[in-house]
Amino acid sequence: MPPTPAGILSTGTEILQGLYADTNAQWLSERLGEAGLEVVRHVAAPDDARAVADALNYLAGVCRVVVITGGLGPTEDDLTRQAVAEFFGRPLVEDARAWRMIEERWGKRGSPPPRSNRVQCLVPEGARVLYNRWGTAAGFIVERGRGGNGLWFAAMPGPPREMQPMYRAYLEKELAKRFGGGLIARAVTLHTFGVSESFLNGLLRPLFDETREDPYRTLAFLAGEARVDVRVTCSGRTRAELRRRLDPLVARARRRAPRGCMYGRDADTLESVVGRLLRRQGLKLAVAESCTGGLVAKRLTDVPGSSEFLIEGLVAYSDEAKRARLGVSAATLRRHGAVSAEVAQEMALGALRHSGADIAVSVTGIAGPGGGTREKPVGLVYYGLARRERTEAGGVSVATFRTCFPSGRDLVRLFASHRALDLIRRRLLGLPLELPGDAEKGARGATAGSVPAARRNLRPER
Amino acid sequence: MPPTPAGILSTGTEILQGLYADTNAQWLSERLGEAGLEVVRHVAAPDDARAVADALNYLAGVCRVVVITGGLGPTEDDLTRQAVAEFFGRPLVEDARAWRMIEERWGKRGSPPPRSNRVQCLVPEGARVLYNRWGTAAGFIVERGRGGNGLWFAAMPGPPREMQPMYRAYLEKELAKRFGGGLIARAVTLHTFGVSESFLNGLLRPLFDETREDPYRTLAFLAGEARVDVRVTCSGRTRAELRRRLDPLVARARRRAPRGCMYGRDADTLESVVGRLLRRQGLKLAVAESCTGGLVAKRLTDVPGSSEFLIEGLVAYSDEAKRARLGVSAATLRRHGAVSAEVAQEMALGALRHSGADIAVSVTGIAGPGGGTREKPVGLVYYGLARRERTEAGGVSVATFRTCFPSGRDLVRLFASHRALDLIRRRLLGLPLELPGDAEKGARGATAGSVPAARRNLRPER
Repeated sequence: MPPTPAGILSTGTEILQGLYADTNAQWLSERLGEAGLEVVRHVAAPDDARAVADALNYLAGVCRVVVITGGLGPTEDDLTRQAVAEFFGRPLVEDARAWRMIEERWGKRGSPPPRSNRVQCLVPEGARVLYNRWGTAAGFIVERGRGGNGLWFAAMPGPPREMQPMYRAYLEKELAKRFGGGLIARAVTLHTFGVSESFLNGLLRPLFDETREDPYRTLAFLAGEARVDVRVTCSGRTRAELRRRLDPLVARARRRAPRGCMYGRDADTLESVVGRLLRRQGLKLAVAESCTGGLVAKRLTDVPGSSEFLIEGLVAYSDEAKRARLGVSAATLRRHGAVSAEVAQEMALGALRHSGADIAVSVTGIAGPGGGTREKPVGLVYYGLARRERTEAGGVSVATFRTCFPSGRDLVRLFASHRALDLIRRRLLGLPLELPGDAEKGARGATAGSVPAARRNLRPER
Repeated sequence: MPPTPAGILSTGTEILQGLYADTNAQWLSERLGEAGLEVVRHVAAPDDARAVADALNYLAGVCRVVVITGGLGPTEDDLTRQAVAEFFGRPLVEDARAWRMIEERWGKRGSPPPRSNRVQCLVPEGARVLYNRWGTAAGFIVERGRGGNGLWFAAMPGPPREMQPMYRAYLEKELAKRFGGGLIARAVTLHTFGVSESFLNGLLRPLFDETREDPYRTLAFLAGEARVDVRVTCSGRTRAELRRRLDPLVARARRRAPRGCMYGRDADTLESVVGRLLRRQGLKLAVAESCTGGLVAKRLTDVPGSSEFLIEGLVAYSDEAKRARLGVSAATLRRHGAVSAEVAQEMALGALRHSGADIAVSVTGIAGPGGGTREKPVGLVYYGLARRERTEAGGVSVATFRTCFPSGRDLVRLFASHRALDLIRRRLLGLPLELPGDAEKGARGATAGSVPAARRNLRPER
C-alpha cells in the first residue's frame, strides 16, 4: 500500500511577506515522514478567511491528513478556527477545560486572562481538543469519514515552542498508528566540525553511491553554519529491521570521516559534548574571550547544570580588561597586538590562574567588519588552551592555535566559538588538536587552516 | 486597484521531506512584495509530474503571476519544464543559444557536456529564455493572455546562487513595471519590549480596525522571542505617497504604545540601540552575568565597534567567581542566596568598581530546568543597575529589579538578556525603569511582572 498522503498548511501573512522561512513546515515534514506518511504538499496562506478556506479545499483534494499551524492567537487576524469549522460545516464551541487551563496559566501570574484570550478555547464542534500546556491557544483534531476518502485535520499554534511539544504529545503516535501503514522511520544526524563538505563528500562517496537506489535508506549532507551534518534516514517494518539497515551505515560513515571530526549525533552540540566530558572527568573550566564576546560562555551555559563545570567566563574586550582581569602584560599587547598567539596564550594562562580552573580556553581575533589589515585580516583568530597538569610536580601546559575563516562578523564569531569548544573537546578526548583542514589539499574553504601557532610546556607554576 | 496576486511554487522532494526550509519562497516573497505584488500563496510539491501539474493548476486559479523554482536539473526527477509546457499546451523546443552557453561552460573545464545536460536547454515553445550565466539550466517566462485573466509564469533553477542573480537580472524590473501597478511598497517594523501582544493589541486596535479594509496599508503583529514586533506595510505610486500613508500610521502606533516600550525599528536591536546611546553619551559599560552566561555581553559585541563602549563582561556562574571577581560578600551569598536582589546589587557595584566603567548591569536568576523552589521558581531573575554619577561629589547610584518569566531555559535567558539591555537603555534615555507589565491588569503574559526590588542612592564611594 502506498504511504498516506499528507499536507501541511502554514497560515500567517508574515510568511507570505517573506518575513521568515516556514520552518514549521520543515519540522513537521520530518516528523510526518518518520511516522510513515508521505508529505505531498506544503501550502502557506495569509491571514485571510477566504485564502485559508481555499487552501484547505485544495489540500483536502490531494491529502488524507492535513496539519495546520498558526492562526490560533487571540487577535483578529487569527482565523484558523473559523476556517476549519466552516470547512467541516460545524459551529465553534467553547471548551471548558481549555478555558480553565488558560485561567490557571494567568492565575499563576496573579491576574485573570484578558477577554481576548477567550477565543483561544474555541474549537469546532465534535473536535478533539489538544490541550496546550506550553502556551494558551488550544489546538484540535477534526475528522470526517474513514478509509481512503476520510479526512483528518489537526490545527496547532504557530510558535515552535508550543507546536513541537504538542505534536509530540498528541499527534506523533496516533499518526504513526493510524496512517503510518506499518512502516516506521528513523533518521540519524551526524555532526562534524573542521572538515569541508567537498572533502567529506569525497570520503563518503561509496556510501552515497550505495544508497542512491536503495528505497529504504538515504544519505544527505546538510550544510550547517560553519560546520557540516550528515543525515542518514531509514525506514522499515520493525525496530530490528531499522537497526539492521541503519547501524552499519552510521558506523561506516563514522569510520570514513577524518579522526575526531564527528563530534556527536542528533541533539548533541559541541557545548553539550564538552559539558559531558568536563563533568565526567570532574574538571572545571574557565573561558577568556575577546572577539567572541561571550558566545563561548553563553553556549556552555546553554547546557543545563553548567554551573558544575564552568567556573567563570571573562569577556575581555578591551586591552584594559585583558591586563587587569587576566594579567596579560602591557609589553605583550604592545609588541604583538591584541590579536596574536602571544596574547591568546597569556589570556588562557591568566584565566586558569585567576579562576583556579583545571582547563582554560581563550579566543582573540578580528571579527570585522572593520579592524582588518593585510597581515591580520578579518577572520583571523588565535586561541589559547591551558591545562593544569595533574602530575606530582603540578605545572601547566599551554598551546596556541590559529584559524582564518574570512566571512561576515557573525560567522567569524560562530566559527571561532566552534573551534574554541572543539579544542577543549579534543584535549579532553586526547585527540589531535589540529584540524584536518590542512590535509584537505585545496578543500579548505569551509574549515580554514588551523595550525598550532606554538605549543610548549611551561615550568610548574608554584 | 488592488495589488497583483502572486504565487510561488517550489519543487523538490527534499523540501517535502523536511531536509531544509524553503528559503527560496521566503526570499522571493520579499522581492515580489518590494516590486508591488502581493504574494498570496506558497506551494511546495515533490518531483512528480502530476503533483507539479496540479500545483500549477491550483496557483493559476488564485494568482496572476507564478514564480517556480527547482526541477530544471539534468536528472529524471526534474520535471518542471514538461509540467509547465503541458500546462500551457505547448511542446518543448531546444534553444540554440542556451545549448551553446552550456557547451562553453563545460568547455572551460576541458570536456563536452554530458548528454543529460541537453534537456537543460529545453523551453516551452514561445517562451522567453532566461539565459543562465550562474549555472547550466536555462530558465524561462511563459505567458497567456493579458489583463486580469492573463497568466505570467517564470521558472528558475532551485540553487539560490543561480536563482537570485537570475531574478535580479531578468525578473525584478519587469515584474515591478508590468504588475507592480506603478506601485512601490515599503514596510516598517517597530520593535517593542516589555509589553504583551494582547495588551498591545488592545492599545492598537483602532489602527487595526482602520487598516483592515485599506488596500494600501496593513498592520500586523509579529511575536518575536520574548518580545513583540508591529509591522506596518504600505504601498503607493510615489515615494511621497508612501510617506504620506506610512509616516502618520507609524507615528500613531508609537504614540499608542506604552511609554518607552518601542525601542527601535527595522534593523535596530536592543543591543544596537544601547551601543548607540553609550557611544553618543561617551559612556563605558561593564556587564556581570550569572544565569545569562555571557548572552548579554555576546549581544553587545554583536554590534560592530563594541570595543568602544564595552569594557568587560564577566560570566560569574559560580559563587566563587562572584566573590573573587566581583567582590560579592560571602555573607550576602549565604544570607540571601545567589539569586537575590542583594547579590544582584553587589554584582553590579562590583562590576562598576573593578572595571572603572560608568555604568554596569548585572543579572542573576534561575534559568532552569533544575534549581527552582517554591519561593524562587524557575524564571525568577534579579537585575542590578549601577551608575557612576557625574556630580561634583562623585558617587554611585544603584537599583535592583526583578522579573519572573516562567518558561524554558533558552527563553528565560533570552528574556533576561532583553531586560538587562532594556534597563541600560531606559537609564540612558531617562525613561521609567519599570516595565508597564504591572499596569497591564491581567495582560502580563509575555512580559512578566517587573518591580523595582530596591532602589537607593549610595553614599559616594570615595
